[in-house]
Amino acid sequence: MKTLSPGATIGILGGGQLGRMLAMAASRLGFSCIILDPDRNCPAGKIARAMICADYDDETALAALSAECDVITYEFENVPAHAVAFLQAAGSALAPPPKALEISQDRLREKNFLQDIGIATAPYQPVENEARLRTAIENLGLPALLKTRRLGYDGKGQAIIKNQNDITNGWKAMQSAPAILEGFIDFALEISVITVRGADGNSKTYHPARNIHKGGILRRSIVPSGADAPIITEARTIAMKIANALDYIGVLGIEFFVGKDDSLMVNEFAPRVHNSGHWTVEACGISQFENHIRAIAGWPLGDTARHSNCEMENLIGEDAANWQALTAEQGALLTLYGKRHQRSGRKMGHVTRLKPL
Amino acid sequence: MKTLSPGATIGILGGGQLGRMLAMAASRLGFSCIILDPDRNCPAGKIARAMICADYDDETALAALSAECDVITYEFENVPAHAVAFLQAAGSALAPPPKALEISQDRLREKNFLQDIGIATAPYQPVENEARLRTAIENLGLPALLKTRRLGYDGKGQAIIKNQNDITNGWKAMQSAPAILEGFIDFALEISVITVRGADGNSKTYHPARNIHKGGILRRSIVPSGADAPIITEARTIAMKIANALDYIGVLGIEFFVGKDDSLMVNEFAPRVHNSGHWTVEACGISQFENHIRAIAGWPLGDTARHSNCEMENLIGEDAANWQALTAEQGALLTLYGKRHQRSGRKMGHVTRLKPL
Repeated sequence: MKTLSPGATIGILGGGQLGRMLAMAASRLGFSCIILDPDRNCPAGKIARAMICADYDDETALAALSAECDVITYEFENVPAHAVAFLQAAGSALAPPPKALEISQDRLREKNFLQDIGIATAPYQPVENEARLRTAIENLGLPALLKTRRLGYDGKGQAIIKNQNDITNGWKAMQSAPAILEGFIDFALEISVITVRGADGNSKTYHPARNIHKGGILRRSIVPSGADAPIITEARTIAMKIANALDYIGVLGIEFFVGKDDSLMVNEFAPRVHNSGHWTVEACGISQFENHIRAIAGWPLGDTARHSNCEMENLIGEDAANWQALTAEQGALLTLYGKRHQRSGRKMGHVTRLKPL
Repeated sequence: MKTLSPGATIGILGGGQLGRMLAMAASRLGFSCIILDPDRNCPAGKIARAMICADYDDETALAALSAECDVITYEFENVPAHAVAFLQAAGSALAPPPKALEISQDRLREKNFLQDIGIATAPYQPVENEARLRTAIENLGLPALLKTRRLGYDGKGQAIIKNQNDITNGWKAMQSAPAILEGFIDFALEISVITVRGADGNSKTYHPARNIHKGGILRRSIVPSGADAPIITEARTIAMKIANALDYIGVLGIEFFVGKDDSLMVNEFAPRVHNSGHWTVEACGISQFENHIRAIAGWPLGDTARHSNCEMENLIGEDAANWQALTAEQGALLTLYGKRHQRSGRKMGHVTRLKPL
């Protein structure tokens, strides 16, 4: 990666709230942003120097983005492989590296990668059909989680198999897509580590957050997590090990299960800024978004220390209708994503409440 | 003022760094922004939903802004009176109120206004010609400061009169513009109070900053200021008194002199977000920019408490060439304004360094 000067242009694939907050961080450092997104009214498009409204595999659009940008990044892991290949062939600098995208797009490859570098995960088996699902259940026991290998997020493409009666419907829910069965982990805590790795190979991590999910969607992130100090140290070390193994540049969000026996397993990672790291905007001098921009710009990483403890709460669907009460709540730090339509399950904003360290 | 809902559009007259940081704060709350500025490459234009490139008194441009925006604000006090009248006639909601603009555009009116509401200022006399200047000097003594009544900022339009030999050149520097002579205040400290007043008449203030000027330009703001507690309380009280007297809505920046005898005088006020309040972005949960947007949107004011002490340093002209060292300095929080050309005396960015409370 070359070092970008202020005034350089950063391309972002995806104009949702993550793209929006990346663009804000980039602007603060003096960079310009161009957003590529199929939705003309996407949140990030309204605050960028320019927006290209096109599908992610539209070659004309990708060529325009490539021509205008000094580096291109993305806000979601499901960037089509074709788009990545096209941008690379066009000579674009792309960060984080495509290898991280490829691995994280496929739950089976992701788990294999983690096992290969010696990091514990839930037990898992690939599942291509109902017969294989039955074999996998014999091996892993019940309950277990069946997930499509690709394109799952926020609890979509998942089914819990509690007993033999769930098997047929569980497999149907996969709609014939290749899947993976994961042994059920009866964890004490879910935590995540936001790690950032710079072009120079240095890594830093933010303090782990404890995450509360509901219906497969993150509801709250709490810092500090309440996990014991050795667990925190181990999670941060594992996070940097993953970033190193991927030759990563940028922010990587890694979700962990902390077992009731204090064991630590990686659930999954996302090669991008992460919802469980939004609190870093309010509670740290330098946020996950700024550190992502610093990394992909070839700049030194910023300090990941926090000045406050905090709790971040997602505003999902109808939660956002409550905005007036939140504006009146002293100490509630509100972020709204500028989405035009409120839909059930849609992330509309978040609120962070600081507490003294 | 009506209460704006997220998704509403805010117009900003002026697209410099203050407009840029206002637009960022507005975006974070889910608002869209439209910038009016004569410079197509102005800092705020690159991060707003739209930018209208025109002079401030261009009626076609003002009509377009008025038609698109739910409220219109400004980043500088020298908005032409004609533009204000045009927007009001077009039915636009304008905040802060035009009365504050009119008063602050004229140093003589500003001082008269402060005296009228019982607030101490430096002694002053209006000066229309060299003969009046000589009379004013007889009354106020030397040294004294000669300033044009209008259009002065960052030390421009000012001359120090140290002795009788400076009189003729001092008056020439005014270029025949009506002026004001101010008695020289041998102060111990310069401090400023960023105050915000909501549409409901409630006011809040941020902790005063101590300001260090060089060549008439703000170089550093330090929080806390080092002033004694009674001075701090008095300054905050005076700030809110001024905001009330102006029926103000939005952020108002007020500069004070603290005398060596602990007397307190108002130097001047600016009816807008203020350079000496930039530190509130990094050291407070809710910045001056967000509180300005909250006020003009008819929202409740946010908490003005700070989580950290800090020192803000302006990057002026060639200072910005030092950006690489600043990116590598741990704990230096950097903001660059996205200006294309570095010029001597031009504010290019700022850096804030936090310290524990």
